[in-house]
Amino acid sequence: MNAVDIIVKKRDGEELTAEEIQFFVDGFVRGEIPDYQVAAWAMAVYFQGMTEAETTALTLAMAASGDQLDLHTSLPPGTVIVDKHSSGGVGDKTTLAVAPIVAACGLPVAKMSGRGLSYTGGTIDKLESFHGWTPDLDEERFRRQLQEIGLVIAGQTANLAPADKILYALRDVTGTVPSLPLIASSIMSKKLAAGADAIVLDVKCGRGAFMETVEDASRLAELMVAIGTRAGRRMTALITQMDQPLGRAVGNALEVKEAIATLQGQGPADFAELVEQVAVEMLRLARPTAAPADLQAQVRQTVESGAALAKFRAFVAAQGGDPAQVDEPDRLPQAPVVQPVPASASGYVQAIDPRAIGLTVVDLGGGRHRKGDPIDHRVGVVLQVKVGDSVEAGQPLALVHAADAEAASQAVQRVLAAFEVGQEAVAPLPLIHGRIGPTSPSDDVR
Amino acid sequence: MNAVDIIVKKRDGEELTAEEIQFFVDGFVRGEIPDYQVAAWAMAVYFQGMTEAETTALTLAMAASGDQLDLHTSLPPGTVIVDKHSSGGVGDKTTLAVAPIVAACGLPVAKMSGRGLSYTGGTIDKLESFHGWTPDLDEERFRRQLQEIGLVIAGQTANLAPADKILYALRDVTGTVPSLPLIASSIMSKKLAAGADAIVLDVKCGRGAFMETVEDASRLAELMVAIGTRAGRRMTALITQMDQPLGRAVGNALEVKEAIATLQGQGPADFAELVEQVAVEMLRLARPTAAPADLQAQVRQTVESGAALAKFRAFVAAQGGDPAQVDEPDRLPQAPVVQPVPASASGYVQAIDPRAIGLTVVDLGGGRHRKGDPIDHRVGVVLQVKVGDSVEAGQPLALVHAADAEAASQAVQRVLAAFEVGQEAVAPLPLIHGRIGPTSPSDDVR
Repeated sequence: MNAVDIIVKKRDGEELTAEEIQFFVDGFVRGEIPDYQVAAWAMAVYFQGMTEAETTALTLAMAASGDQLDLHTSLPPGTVIVDKHSSGGVGDKTTLAVAPIVAACGLPVAKMSGRGLSYTGGTIDKLESFHGWTPDLDEERFRRQLQEIGLVIAGQTANLAPADKILYALRDVTGTVPSLPLIASSIMSKKLAAGADAIVLDVKCGRGAFMETVEDASRLAELMVAIGTRAGRRMTALITQMDQPLGRAVGNALEVKEAIATLQGQGPADFAELVEQVAVEMLRLARPTAAPADLQAQVRQTVESGAALAKFRAFVAAQGGDPAQVDEPDRLPQAPVVQPVPASASGYVQAIDPRAIGLTVVDLGGGRHRKGDPIDHRVGVVLQVKVGDSVEAGQPLALVHAADAEAASQAVQRVLAAFEVGQEAVAPLPLIHGRIGPTSPSDDVR
Repeated sequence: MNAVDIIVKKRDGEELTAEEIQFFVDGFVRGEIPDYQVAAWAMAVYFQGMTEAETTALTLAMAASGDQLDLHTSLPPGTVIVDKHSSGGVGDKTTLAVAPIVAACGLPVAKMSGRGLSYTGGTIDKLESFHGWTPDLDEERFRRQLQEIGLVIAGQTANLAPADKILYALRDVTGTVPSLPLIASSIMSKKLAAGADAIVLDVKCGRGAFMETVEDASRLAELMVAIGTRAGRRMTALITQMDQPLGRAVGNALEVKEAIATLQGQGPADFAELVEQVAVEMLRLARPTAAPADLQAQVRQTVESGAALAKFRAFVAAQGGDPAQVDEPDRLPQAPVVQPVPASASGYVQAIDPRAIGLTVVDLGGGRHRKGDPIDHRVGVVLQVKVGDSVEAGQPLALVHAADAEAASQAVQRVLAAFEVGQEAVAPLPLIHGRIGPTSPSDDVR
């Protein structure tokens, strides 16, 4: 077996064996297969694709390239460990509300999360709005918190799927990012290494997502569900709309406040609906014989009873955060300048460009252009209306939260440009485009 | 302009500008664009191809990456410098006979040649059969010999098209060798840098050539003619048959002897025909108004008069070789063992696998498995019959020239296996499949 033969076989559209894929991944992780051969192979995959079997083999080989967590040893026998993953969007603070709800329903949640880059935010950045909160937990503390609270969200450990880190860094500089099997295996390798038995995927679709069409998002979701199923995990994917920001708040502390409001039953309708749906899907995977209506009732009950909020408070405190900021969200970091974005004309909101809003928040200081940039947790944009709402001229479309007046007025112009207001009445955007349940393994070439 | 954008543009099937190609070539020659980006780009080119305009831009950028010879300063004003290039085959000693014929016709010939690798031999290796002959000439000596003798054949200078060296080495290990625009630009960049005004391409086609079908060879030839024409050179290509070894001799000193015999008017029919055709094409490019029949007559005349042989003798001597070996070819290196390969049955020669013959000569010591291997100039195979000839059982199909008896008997078995003898009468193989003359530039995507 050698690297050139594997490249040529893929270049010619043949199916690689699991052994060949393992050899290739091992080789580049050990530095025995050089970058230029990996790059040529990735471009061949871009053009020729991979079968489900190949993509699964790649995912498993990358998952096995570093640490693989087994959290069952820290939990009662028979516990099903459920994870969720969002493909990323603007205003996506779903984990902040879903994780405590599911944990309050008795299902332990142990998540590895990331930081934001460009127009999409990161769960870790948002949680760092809490004074003292830390994502850096050693394994012992991680396991103890999972046992005691049933909810832990940590930064990704250094050695989770190192093969994916190497391959992704190379794809980023060789024009081979947009390859469905490479995207799917990148996401799934980290999820499998993190040790979940069951995974709910929230695949975003639209102008503010990596996948712009429902068709593309569905193909990615189907492939990831197939990989997880072949790897012996229980899988569900939701295809959800990202044509406007999710909920109303975009920006770290602002999104935390919106998540807390949602845990108090006072969240924006679209966001609250998504949180409930994802929570129900996570519970369904763990308790497949339960009636969905019962699970939905249980989810609502944990919110109404305050159990979910209490779980969130305990989680924040366990990781060093200040629980008083959960009880009194006004104690979270506040921007000194808040400026409205008045509508130029009356009409109906036709569209709100999520990417433009996300990039405005990055430039306000709330996100990163480059890895490692510091961020300002206070700033962001809070939408006052969403697509389908009617507005009067002068009515605020959004509020800009900024570090100073100059940054605020620049952002106001950009937010205004992100809104399209027209005379025709339009319907609110549907939130959930589809659901993909577990499938049987197939050998379809994608 | 940046490398990733150029890779993505090619990946998406768009046409790169000459500026983008220049930027990319300059970048990788300077080491500013890393190997992995060049590899990904080459794989994208493999899948998306390049237009004639792109391929020409690549060729010119690679030709300009190192030294570019201008030999006109050493020659009378108005002299047209004509070069020839063969795409490589088994028993291809054409340059050895064509170059002195053309030089004897008054057209100066200054060639850079290479060494052999695998089953194809190299002109430099063959000429080193002459005791003392050297390919290592400094520029002054090269120019002086061109003025004085009108014929010089040297090893390639170190800095001719260094971009091609880098790109070819990378293609070799990334599965991107068989790409028509990359093959064509690799060959043509070296030819253009070597400074010829006019080039006759001998594109081999068949079982012993890189291009196996007439169609593939014609596409390569057309593309190279187009590149040369766009670069302002006069171009002709012949598509010639390489389904059996050319002539009868395969092996260094044996091929030199066959070339000398051909210069004496006693060469094998197929080889003598090819030599005459290539010589006429070279003269036609330099003297486009002359009648082809007159040029053919002149070529024949230089052979019949002994002028071509005299030119060859002077050339060998000028580069340090022993001219007595030209006059008495038996003084060339002789193998101690010569063993016949008897036909197992009577019939007609249906086929002679050129690659098998070439590889047998390599294993006899007459060629290289790896760059830098030493070679034995004495050894080789001399065919006694060719495709279409009738043979009696026991009659020698070929003679093996070997260093010892053991090597000889192994080679005899392999040469026997390379011959296919059958009952049905077959026609001799046609030698020349086609001729491609100068074309106008076009923008066809290939």
